[in-house]
Amino acid sequence: MDRTVVNLQEKFSRLTEHWAPRVIAEMNDYQFKVVRLQGDFVWHDHPETDETFLVIEGSLRIDFPDRAVQLGPGELFVVPKGTRHKPYAQDEVKLLLIEPRGVQNTGNEGGDRTAANDIWI
Amino acid sequence: MDRTVVNLQEKFSRLTEHWAPRVIAEMNDYQFKVVRLQGDFVWHDHPETDETFLVIEGSLRIDFPDRAVQLGPGELFVVPKGTRHKPYAQDEVKLLLIEPRGVQNTGNEGGDRTAANDIWI
Repeated sequence: MDRTVVNLQEKFSRLTEHWAPRVIAEMNDYQFKVVRLQGDFVWHDHPETDETFLVIEGSLRIDFPDRAVQLGPGELFVVPKGTRHKPYAQDEVKLLLIEPRGVQNTGNEGGDRTAANDIWI
Repeated sequence: MDRTVVNLQEKFSRLTEHWAPRVIAEMNDYQFKVVRLQGDFVWHDHPETDETFLVIEGSLRIDFPDRAVQLGPGELFVVPKGTRHKPYAQDEVKLLLIEPRGVQNTGNEGGDRTAANDIWI
């Protein structure tokens, strides 16, 4: 067994780009990803899967068509599959994302906010 | 969509028992569980699945037959499926566990350390 301990802050310290998820660990066919967010993202959904947001630092708003939720450090939210959502961070947020391998950050929306997938840090 | 924001510390504040995992959220067929650990557990493995440990507070050692890893706050480790392991916490640890629904805390070992499964908090 060659797996190592993953320190979240050490991973964030090597990541400067915004909206660029980086894989830090895998559990079965799921991935843990660190990502720095700042500003507004695009509306999208993931038709095939739920997606988990766990805020490590900062304050994250997730907008839905009919409501919004606000997450602080140590707060977790599972966006149900097929639910349109748009993350927004007024100030920078450090986020842990958990979702199946292969999920695109923009769902099926495409566009220039689509990040390269499956890149480890 | 009736899902709510889950605050980890609020969940821990309502959990006093040790070695009693409590479900706080589900993502597809996976569960997020809070658990307080103190002292020694039993050797076991999960033949069907990986299991993720994310330490929220305290210092956790996980023993394997040929090595041990030490996890502090903000550190994550994925125990590979079928790998025998034994968690140990000298002082109390607050832990977030992530694994598929239905996984028993003692694997197939059984015994009096086996916790009730699928209990939400």
